[in-house]
Amino acid sequence: MSDTKFTSYRLTEETRGVFIISATPFKEDGALDLESIDRLIDFYLEKGVSGITILGMMGEAPKLNPEESKAVMKRVFARVNGQVPVIVGVSNAGMDNLVNLAHSGMELGAAGVMVAPFAAQKTETALFNYYESVCEALGLDVPLCYQDFPLVTGVNISVECFHSMVDAFDQLVMLKHEDWPGLSKLTQIRNSAEKNNHRKVSILCGNGGLYLPQELGRGADGAMTGFAYPEMLVQVCDLYHSGEIDKAEDLFDLYLPLVRHEQQPGYGLAVRKEILRRRGAISCAATRAPGPKLSKQDHVDLDRLMSRLESRLAVGS
Amino acid sequence: MSDTKFTSYRLTEETRGVFIISATPFKEDGALDLESIDRLIDFYLEKGVSGITILGMMGEAPKLNPEESKAVMKRVFARVNGQVPVIVGVSNAGMDNLVNLAHSGMELGAAGVMVAPFAAQKTETALFNYYESVCEALGLDVPLCYQDFPLVTGVNISVECFHSMVDAFDQLVMLKHEDWPGLSKLTQIRNSAEKNNHRKVSILCGNGGLYLPQELGRGADGAMTGFAYPEMLVQVCDLYHSGEIDKAEDLFDLYLPLVRHEQQPGYGLAVRKEILRRRGAISCAATRAPGPKLSKQDHVDLDRLMSRLESRLAVGS
Amino acid sequence: MSDTKFTSYRLTEETRGVFIISATPFKEDGALDLESIDRLIDFYLEKGVSGITILGMMGEAPKLNPEESKAVMKRVFARVNGQVPVIVGVSNAGMDNLVNLAHSGMELGAAGVMVAPFAAQKTETALFNYYESVCEALGLDVPLCYQDFPLVTGVNISVECFHSMVDAFDQLVMLKHEDWPGLSKLTQIRNSAEKNNHRKVSILCGNGGLYLPQELGRGADGAMTGFAYPEMLVQVCDLYHSGEIDKAEDLFDLYLPLVRHEQQPGYGLAVRKEILRRRGAISCAATRAPGPKLSKQDHVDLDRLMSRLESRLAVGS
Amino acid sequence: MSDTKFTSYRLTEETRGVFIISATPFKEDGALDLESIDRLIDFYLEKGVSGITILGMMGEAPKLNPEESKAVMKRVFARVNGQVPVIVGVSNAGMDNLVNLAHSGMELGAAGVMVAPFAAQKTETALFNYYESVCEALGLDVPLCYQDFPLVTGVNISVECFHSMVDAFDQLVMLKHEDWPGLSKLTQIRNSAEKNNHRKVSILCGNGGLYLPQELGRGADGAMTGFAYPEMLVQVCDLYHSGEIDKAEDLFDLYLPLVRHEQQPGYGLAVRKEILRRRGAISCAATRAPGPKLSKQDHVDLDRLMSRLESRLAVGS
Repeated sequence: MSDTKFTSYRLTEETRGVFIISATPFKEDGALDLESIDRLIDFYLEKGVSGITILGMMGEAPKLNPEESKAVMKRVFARVNGQVPVIVGVSNAGMDNLVNLAHSGMELGAAGVMVAPFAAQKTETALFNYYESVCEALGLDVPLCYQDFPLVTGVNISVECFHSMVDAFDQLVMLKHEDWPGLSKLTQIRNSAEKNNHRKVSILCGNGGLYLPQELGRGADGAMTGFAYPEMLVQVCDLYHSGEIDKAEDLFDLYLPLVRHEQQPGYGLAVRKEILRRRGAISCAATRAPGPKLSKQDHVDLDRLMSRLESRLAVGS
Repeated sequence: MSDTKFTSYRLTEETRGVFIISATPFKEDGALDLESIDRLIDFYLEKGVSGITILGMMGEAPKLNPEESKAVMKRVFARVNGQVPVIVGVSNAGMDNLVNLAHSGMELGAAGVMVAPFAAQKTETALFNYYESVCEALGLDVPLCYQDFPLVTGVNISVECFHSMVDAFDQLVMLKHEDWPGLSKLTQIRNSAEKNNHRKVSILCGNGGLYLPQELGRGADGAMTGFAYPEMLVQVCDLYHSGEIDKAEDLFDLYLPLVRHEQQPGYGLAVRKEILRRRGAISCAATRAPGPKLSKQDHVDLDRLMSRLESRLAVGS
Repeated sequence: MSDTKFTSYRLTEETRGVFIISATPFKEDGALDLESIDRLIDFYLEKGVSGITILGMMGEAPKLNPEESKAVMKRVFARVNGQVPVIVGVSNAGMDNLVNLAHSGMELGAAGVMVAPFAAQKTETALFNYYESVCEALGLDVPLCYQDFPLVTGVNISVECFHSMVDAFDQLVMLKHEDWPGLSKLTQIRNSAEKNNHRKVSILCGNGGLYLPQELGRGADGAMTGFAYPEMLVQVCDLYHSGEIDKAEDLFDLYLPLVRHEQQPGYGLAVRKEILRRRGAISCAATRAPGPKLSKQDHVDLDRLMSRLESRLAVGS
Repeated sequence: MSDTKFTSYRLTEETRGVFIISATPFKEDGALDLESIDRLIDFYLEKGVSGITILGMMGEAPKLNPEESKAVMKRVFARVNGQVPVIVGVSNAGMDNLVNLAHSGMELGAAGVMVAPFAAQKTETALFNYYESVCEALGLDVPLCYQDFPLVTGVNISVECFHSMVDAFDQLVMLKHEDWPGLSKLTQIRNSAEKNNHRKVSILCGNGGLYLPQELGRGADGAMTGFAYPEMLVQVCDLYHSGEIDKAEDLFDLYLPLVRHEQQPGYGLAVRKEILRRRGAISCAATRAPGPKLSKQDHVDLDRLMSRLESRLAVGS
């Protein structure tokens, strides 16, 4: 039974911190590894994350069937047990599927949902109309995070279009920012909101955290990504937000070789899961087929990068 | 109870004729319209199709959940009742989902499955490896149709790569040909098979039938598309295959204004379903959200195109 | 010496009719065939075109060097000699190159220039900004046609964004409409202009003319495409605009098998040039390398399609 | 007059080291800044580069006209004066333009040319055929570097296809490796060459150097990229090749925050030119329109990143 803080929490424009994108653990044969979910959630919580996002692209959501998605949700919510808010990724080619998944999540206690556009939204008008339909279908009380990830979705959104959505849809309270390059866009969103009186939404940054210090400097509220050393993300955000900018960046730079290594599209997921496995957070690093695998040489690179990180952390401490 | 011909039929390299891509009928509210499936199947059978392909892209398969997909399959197989072979589209981002859907179909009596590649297969080597995994996961006794539709999938395949698959995977017996432009490719496949001793597979053509006479002239075995006047596809193939080439093309040309009209990407599905509705094959023309809808002006165009076709058919008869 | 009508003509919102996209004739060895330009221009003028567009994508402009582009322009303007207006395609990755080409064209007597966007314009704001720069760089007295051809450029524009450009840039007087599907967009542009008081620009349709009758019905002012039987485009527009809609469509339908055949991306240019060669308009059908070539079987298809057209025209006359 | 070492040098499979991708300097008004070319070449030579690549994508080659391209070439070759080999980027939509540029470069003393594929090469067979035409058109004595940069070109090549080219075209002696992720591909190329007896070509890595240490560990021969601190690339390669792997990686990691910052697509070019300007290598950081510009905030970020680098280098020395 849960009587903790976040069981009825809803995302707002004030939400900030590190929402870790949770991996979805599988066994060698591709079956869901529900036991590892418990361990992984504990791992994330121990590292101090402010929230957890499940069933995102990095969670291999498109390879799950709806029953598996629900099984993952139940297990996660049971383990999190209200300790932090949970966002559910519900992007789907079909509106009904999207809504069903979203409502299942909200009933279990989700703080909101994340939706990415897809290629059918060819113009910004089409994009706006799609999110209008999404908001209507979800219902007004489901907080929404817009995932801006053109490298994968192929859909770009201008600051103007994003703000027209913010103006029109009260439930749109968060932006997952992973346009690339995206620093100017971040500044433009913040400036335009102030200048033109748009609501100032929560902005959490993705792209594996590759530009996190710069993004915090541009007004981001934190990170939403799945880097396998969540403690770095947490500490960098904390240091930054408490004004210790150089320390934040010093710490970040120690991890940067690994951040960059994990940030390789597609392949990086295999790296991330292997690091999580080595750190004891999951039992098996397998991605579901079709998915990337590490070769012997890949392991050698990873050994080296992890060991160099450990040495540097040891010196630093 | 079924004791008819095609309950245990399997696709082979000799399969030919018109495999109609079945629409999936929905009600206004987006719910599956199972009653209309019966009517639609009867309609297709009356028009003389050689086979039916279900759960393809034009069947809005990505918007169904797995239970709905299975409900569609069951209803279709029950109504077809072995009168013609049925192919099931099983393309999916996850291998497990793909295999589960395929096996469900085969158990119900499918003649084979159709699989399209997707963007993760970036090189022809990756493409070959993906289909190797698909074949292995399906099992050797599941006949496979390769859907070559770069306009939608973004994946192109060379004649050489396709034939390397044909050589390696005995169960790959059919090509759904809808590369565009694709006439030269068709000739190259036929010539290369003969010259280099590759198996000569069945080739059924898509793209709404827009180039059907030319494709039959290049060695295609028929059509696999969803044009809402299946009788044209059937008659054109029959005439062509019995050597009445001019008659085939004359008939085709009568329908060409509508073929071209239906062949508009995305939007064409709404046209197709509306024609099927007007012809009494389904109760409601709705596509599932997010999907195209016809405006008043769209209906005016369609009225005109259909009425012109009817006049010309009346003159011709 | 020219004292004719169109030497100082400028495109306006009232411009209508058929602006043929001119092919660029080459010799077998790839050299410019300037003599054939004379013949080709005469051919177009004899067929009754209202204007000519040169150095478009179908004119293989990206394969010319600037000197060749200027040589083509000079020869065309000398031969046209003010009999019809000429539009120059000036799309270019660099603004300086674009402007130089445009100014060369205007000095020779061009009626305006056509500019397509390219992939760097990722959002509609970026698209607007790009055209703002283009207009500024061209100068206010250079009339501009926006080429809306997402299949090739990869850039989509909404009706709203297009009209924001129309409102902001007085010199933007024409849309080359070849979005696909594009019928609804055409209706929306016309309706939105009327309802929201935007300037009503000239709309000429591309896509090889594949939907020309429907597009005229939606409010298009004519065609801008390179179909190798320009007389059909001219007659269809004339009939349509004089209210003889059925006759227009009857005539169109006779040519539709060839319209569709020429409308194959990339490959269709080789078909078009071969028809122009067979009709005596150019000496050699070669496209510049790398470019498509016709095989023996391609010639057989073309023989057949052209001969079928001739038979039907003979019956009709 | 030049009597130095590299005036008649030709690229071979043994070529290694750092070939810097040269920026092209412009004045504020967009005109070529030929004086800055001299300074920039001197800067690169002082930093110890093994070679220079001009007129690549990062050199804004598509925005130059052919006369400007030749002016750049002449100035560069005059200044380099045989001190290091020079590669000329000659990618072009037209084969004639490509060949003319290549021959101009070779006559001036280029060591070879670099050619990237483009979207028209949709299958690996088409890709092979294109490079066959390129090799034939260039002539056998022009050494060729294949630029493998799918993020920009949209064209992917498998190890198998690349090696089929290596086997077929003797003049193909170098790979500019910037597939992403690309570490496994590098290993596969090296392993497959050894196992299957393909020629072992020179591999220089791009992507701004983002994975340089790992790539050297996988068998790369050096770097070909335009990072604005070429001395880092040179030292990392030297250290790595002399077996001082940890030192190489330590040095690399100091620069990594800036490597990552410069490696932002499109935008990164503005960063790179500004760093070159600040370092005195060019007079003006302007990119040619349409191109990226730095905002005030962008300068603040760059101040900070450069100053942090300088502090760390000071500590290290």
